[in-house]
Amino acid sequence: MPASSPASDKYTQSQPLWARIALALRGRVLAGEWKAGEAIPAESALSEFYGVALGTMRGAIQSLVEDGLLERIHGRGTFVRGGLTGATMLRFFRFGSAEGDVPASRIKSVKAVKAPALAARELLLAADEQAICIERQRCWGGKVQLLETLWVPHGPFKALLDLDKKDFSPLMYPMYAERLGITVNRAVDELSFDRLSAAQARTLDLPVGHPALRVERVAFDLAGRRIEFRVTVGNADHFRYRAEIR
Amino acid sequence: MPASSPASDKYTQSQPLWARIALALRGRVLAGEWKAGEAIPAESALSEFYGVALGTMRGAIQSLVEDGLLERIHGRGTFVRGGLTGATMLRFFRFGSAEGDVPASRIKSVKAVKAPALAARELLLAADEQAICIERQRCWGGKVQLLETLWVPHGPFKALLDLDKKDFSPLMYPMYAERLGITVNRAVDELSFDRLSAAQARTLDLPVGHPALRVERVAFDLAGRRIEFRVTVGNADHFRYRAEIR
Repeated sequence: MPASSPASDKYTQSQPLWARIALALRGRVLAGEWKAGEAIPAESALSEFYGVALGTMRGAIQSLVEDGLLERIHGRGTFVRGGLTGATMLRFFRFGSAEGDVPASRIKSVKAVKAPALAARELLLAADEQAICIERQRCWGGKVQLLETLWVPHGPFKALLDLDKKDFSPLMYPMYAERLGITVNRAVDELSFDRLSAAQARTLDLPVGHPALRVERVAFDLAGRRIEFRVTVGNADHFRYRAEIR
Repeated sequence: MPASSPASDKYTQSQPLWARIALALRGRVLAGEWKAGEAIPAESALSEFYGVALGTMRGAIQSLVEDGLLERIHGRGTFVRGGLTGATMLRFFRFGSAEGDVPASRIKSVKAVKAPALAARELLLAADEQAICIERQRCWGGKVQLLETLWVPHGPFKALLDLDKKDFSPLMYPMYAERLGITVNRAVDELSFDRLSAAQARTLDLPVGHPALRVERVAFDLAGRRIEFRVTVGNADHFRYRAEIR
């Protein structure tokens, strides 16, 4: 398994009472006592349980909200975040005529492999550690638009090796949650520009060397562990992204 | 001048007391009573002045914080946001060897023009309205790396026509604040890929048709008015961007 991230270390090293309470609450989420999408008990009940002031409990909860583990829903309470759906690659691409179409996913291969250097580094795998590599194509408007290669650590994901390719869901994150109990809580995308290789160009029906957008994504679970690294490549002419600064 | 944005209309149509108070506070910022970078009075003093509960005043202030007009600085108070510096295009590009270098700006031309359709639309200018067009090059490591074309509405910016090119600051937004009293409060970037034209390729010392990143940016002032539209073009091979989802 990947090592724990700085996000969880932050809590063990923190001194203030609210931070120690936050650590305890986080532990209850990670232990599965409070599940993704479910409400946690009221602040008053929790502050009584831990014997701390309401303000301290609010600070603890607020820190977990800022960390993305919990979310407040106005008038309804505080909930464990439901996990990402994985339908987020469309933030970076627009596929004109295919806008109304339901995206499809074709799994090409699922294999146990020694992770290549880049994937091993991004997943914090040991040098000799096994990973699972998944190749898939994502289609819009009946056309292959994105090529994806995903790596996940072997241990927690090994059940995927026994799964028929046809039984993979079009969205991976909900499938990880349902089949493996792994919730993807956040993801970091690194965008850059590339050229299509001969094989990529053939599959995308574009010329070799055609401009491509390359997205390298690391996905993190509720505990802040790196649980998936994926590289997505698509025609750069379909790239659109909107960013706000303030 | 551009029409007022939905951001300000939102306040005039709002019913709750906190929203009407927020509108009054916003008016004091826009009138220049409280200036960019300065603290506003304490919440208790303001709630007394307007004769409303402290909670109502907090709600009004919070809405202006979320709008980006005010910011809370922990332990120090609430301040009028200082405005963007404009050094933000480096979020999208990495210029390897030039990392330590101070970026330079070369103004090539400053002209009163009829805004082209795209700029007129983005600045919400009338069909016959004049604009000022500024062409500049941005350099890192002694090399021209980015080509920029900026449009601003003629009225509030006409003083720029009399300014010597050498007296333009390398960062436009602080110059707008100092010389024109216009604070850039937020900006929206639209990213896409393009190919270099012959003229662009010559200036950037790259082949014609070379892949380029194109950034179209609209900048907004404190009142939410569109006060600048700019198109920035650079070598796509230097494009790097990091986005987080949660």
